[in-house]
Amino acid sequence: MSTTGNPETTARRRGRRPAGQDTRTALIDAARAVFAENGYDGATVRAIATRAGVDAAMVNHWFGSKEGLFARAVLELPFDPHELMETLRDGPDEEFGERIVRTFLTRWDSAGGGVFVALIRSVAGHEQAGHVLRDFFQNFFQHVLASVGSDQIPLRTTLCASQLVGMGMIRYVAKFEPLATTEIETLVAAVAPNVQRYISGDLG
Amino acid sequence: MSTTGNPETTARRRGRRPAGQDTRTALIDAARAVFAENGYDGATVRAIATRAGVDAAMVNHWFGSKEGLFARAVLELPFDPHELMETLRDGPDEEFGERIVRTFLTRWDSAGGGVFVALIRSVAGHEQAGHVLRDFFQNFFQHVLASVGSDQIPLRTTLCASQLVGMGMIRYVAKFEPLATTEIETLVAAVAPNVQRYISGDLG
Repeated sequence: MSTTGNPETTARRRGRRPAGQDTRTALIDAARAVFAENGYDGATVRAIATRAGVDAAMVNHWFGSKEGLFARAVLELPFDPHELMETLRDGPDEEFGERIVRTFLTRWDSAGGGVFVALIRSVAGHEQAGHVLRDFFQNFFQHVLASVGSDQIPLRTTLCASQLVGMGMIRYVAKFEPLATTEIETLVAAVAPNVQRYISGDLG
Repeated sequence: MSTTGNPETTARRRGRRPAGQDTRTALIDAARAVFAENGYDGATVRAIATRAGVDAAMVNHWFGSKEGLFARAVLELPFDPHELMETLRDGPDEEFGERIVRTFLTRWDSAGGGVFVALIRSVAGHEQAGHVLRDFFQNFFQHVLASVGSDQIPLRTTLCASQLVGMGMIRYVAKFEPLATTEIETLVAAVAPNVQRYISGDLG
């Protein structure tokens, strides 16, 4: 059980950190319950906020959107696209692939393989989990690809997703050696040029 | 229910096609039951053959090995590594990636996405299914990589697996557009150079 303060009070103290973390935890707990009961499409931001006893605006404040909340609460993705773009914006365009592969591996490794396994089980079992994963990659790569001026953004987005999801599948779910335990920088050197080609290279 | 002839008679007519197809079907049915009851490690070729009412040699004759039978019966992979290598041997080494991507997409497309979804569910849910998938890729890519004289065969094998499994995940399981419905030759042009780099390129 998580320790939550008085949620009504919390909702009024918008933006104050200590109470806010309680709000965030309460929203994640409520979201897990409401998504499980009603499915992704049937779950409303209002219903989740009511269950958590906080204002609906707190969902946007803490998670950006219903998708962001689902990504955190159900898919257990350890980041959201907006936060991720902030991290990746610094550096040359031709090294975007390198920064992306390094960041994904570092976050997924530190979150433990179980997070990625849960994500893949969700996607294999529930259509709506696949939609959220798609929205996540779309939001994220639209920013990346627009910022480097690439053409064919939708195809490039899904090609990048194929390599990153596949890398996660082999490293965390199927656990094929040596990729499952290869050092991050060795994998970055091996995989990043392929992701970079999907971002800005000639697709033939 | 499959139509099987008298299995004892079938077993004695080894190598005769019409009866053989019944043997093959009986083995697949028996394998599904025995793998489900005993798990991958607990299931023996002898137990499966006994359940099917045929000689244990029929498993090697039709499926090459216990792994091959599991791949067909449980993972529903529409091919086995030996058959696949025959198909792919013809052509220049530098186009191996192209032939591989085209062949996988063509087979998986024609088998329907459901086959790949079942495969990923097996891998996400059962450790032994992951081992069989690993063995499949290892057997297959060891032949490919040895025939083109590549170094770092284990790492290259798992890198190739990451791209092919990821492509299958996005096209058949998560169904991200446009990759889910992109024409095969467009995808071959986009993905094959990346697989080729994993086969014979500089890994950094």
